[in-house]
Amino acid sequence: MNAPAPDLPMTVPAEGLPARVRIHEVGARDGLQNEKAIVPAVVKAEFIRRLAGTGLTTIEATSFVHPKWVPQLADAEELFLAVADLPVSLPVLVPNERGLDRALALGARRVAVFASATESFARANLNRTVDEALAMFEPVVSRAKAEGVHVRGYLSMCFGDPWEGAVPVPQVVRVCRALLDMGCDELSLGDTIGVATPGHVTALLAALTGAGVPVSALGVHFHDTYGQALSNTLAALQRGVTTVDASAGGLGGCPYAKSATGNLATEDLVWMLRGLGIDTGIDLGRLVATSVWMAAHLGRPSPSRTVRALSHQEQ
Amino acid sequence: MNAPAPDLPMTVPAEGLPARVRIHEVGARDGLQNEKAIVPAVVKAEFIRRLAGTGLTTIEATSFVHPKWVPQLADAEELFLAVADLPVSLPVLVPNERGLDRALALGARRVAVFASATESFARANLNRTVDEALAMFEPVVSRAKAEGVHVRGYLSMCFGDPWEGAVPVPQVVRVCRALLDMGCDELSLGDTIGVATPGHVTALLAALTGAGVPVSALGVHFHDTYGQALSNTLAALQRGVTTVDASAGGLGGCPYAKSATGNLATEDLVWMLRGLGIDTGIDLGRLVATSVWMAAHLGRPSPSRTVRALSHQEQ
Repeated sequence: MNAPAPDLPMTVPAEGLPARVRIHEVGARDGLQNEKAIVPAVVKAEFIRRLAGTGLTTIEATSFVHPKWVPQLADAEELFLAVADLPVSLPVLVPNERGLDRALALGARRVAVFASATESFARANLNRTVDEALAMFEPVVSRAKAEGVHVRGYLSMCFGDPWEGAVPVPQVVRVCRALLDMGCDELSLGDTIGVATPGHVTALLAALTGAGVPVSALGVHFHDTYGQALSNTLAALQRGVTTVDASAGGLGGCPYAKSATGNLATEDLVWMLRGLGIDTGIDLGRLVATSVWMAAHLGRPSPSRTVRALSHQEQ
Repeated sequence: MNAPAPDLPMTVPAEGLPARVRIHEVGARDGLQNEKAIVPAVVKAEFIRRLAGTGLTTIEATSFVHPKWVPQLADAEELFLAVADLPVSLPVLVPNERGLDRALALGARRVAVFASATESFARANLNRTVDEALAMFEPVVSRAKAEGVHVRGYLSMCFGDPWEGAVPVPQVVRVCRALLDMGCDELSLGDTIGVATPGHVTALLAALTGAGVPVSALGVHFHDTYGQALSNTLAALQRGVTTVDASAGGLGGCPYAKSATGNLATEDLVWMLRGLGIDTGIDLGRLVATSVWMAAHLGRPSPSRTVRALSHQEQ
């Protein structure tokens, strides 16, 4: 059987979906951070450079956490400087004021804080209560805003939590409101353990917009642990969401959950969006080639089905 | 990180979806037929028996094609007799009148014919034109109906074709109409190479219902080659489809396409349906255990993400 004809996927738009989606690429940070292997900074920089060459416009670069927490991120300064010339947005994570200082010193124009919707994960990830973590972020966000820097607020465990089970929607709405009220420009609603299904996604988005949050301030961040990431994304698009987090090649996962097999693969998302006629500006062939190149560095095949299907055909 | 709490996935229904979905389980036939290894009939029978124990009500058992075409199916009679006592529907494939004779002689009450929406695949799979294949099926369907037997019509390549590219919707509607007009009780719309996206699914279903086909006569059969199967299923549910084909553990694929990595995994589908509050009557834990058992026989892990996530946690 020959390779698919070049007009695949067929483009057949669906009603009620946005005309354009911005993909927030997290593979270089969220993805590589959760790999066992330490990837050299020069390889990370080349990965980001290749990702920028695919047409991606927002590529999360690194995280200014203390190296003793995450050894994979000890090269944050070196890496950021190596890619700072690229004509794309390069958000970086900052856990606290010290991290913000480091990011601002390098000229970062977009930063992100990372909160939790549940007490259990706030304790596990940040060793704080939810409100203590919010209090820690408040001066980070206000200083960043005073510097004219764009701030994203990540919110983990928005749907299910491995210790607490289902996470009540009002609990998530409360933390979202707190992050927006302190000045976050956008939120990323994370299904950290990948358990959400489309009705839950719709319900959370409806509750947030019902509470006055503009949908333009909301991004979604799904994990494919149970194979649900793309159908959840479709449900979010149907509610007007236009910012979707994804990871090239499906890199990454949750370091605390062996079974959290990874983020939504950017290629699988681009395939769907292209089929739906939703503009992303991304060259899928280049993106697949980039993920194949990264997979070779990591010594294992990409978990993205689209990468596997298209790279198989090229062999 | 502990195993997910027992109330996962959370159940949050969505508007406009059916209350109940019937899963047409194809793993034992479509799945094992496409495995390189020849699985002994006794193992296939035990697989079907375990699948029936999970609450699945429709389990495709085998195919009465000539053994020289598909050696994996040379045990069709032996296998069918070994499971005929189970209190579930056991559809079998019949390519022609000789196959129908064999199925009827064993007491089969549900049969299926398999047509193609494209000339290229009709030629590759059946060595006939589309219309020659329909002419071959006509006496099969009319004799089955005269015997009071339920007939399903499989239709391959309903969205994209590896030789022809995009498949025009009117071309698919024409073959669907022909199958229904000759007496098929239900159709299974196949995305054989896994390239469809949700807008295309919606457009085909709208065209079919617009042409007077009741949605209750339509099932969908998606492959996960590009990771699109579950989002396409969601789009089909939103159009009122209540019959979904899936393969336990994600077994199978298209024998003519190396990259066609398999059918939609039943477990991933059940996870989504359970989250949406859509009744399937299936015990997910038992189903995962069955797929883990089968994967051990095949000597490789299940490609289903839900199977991997839940079985990992049990270790």
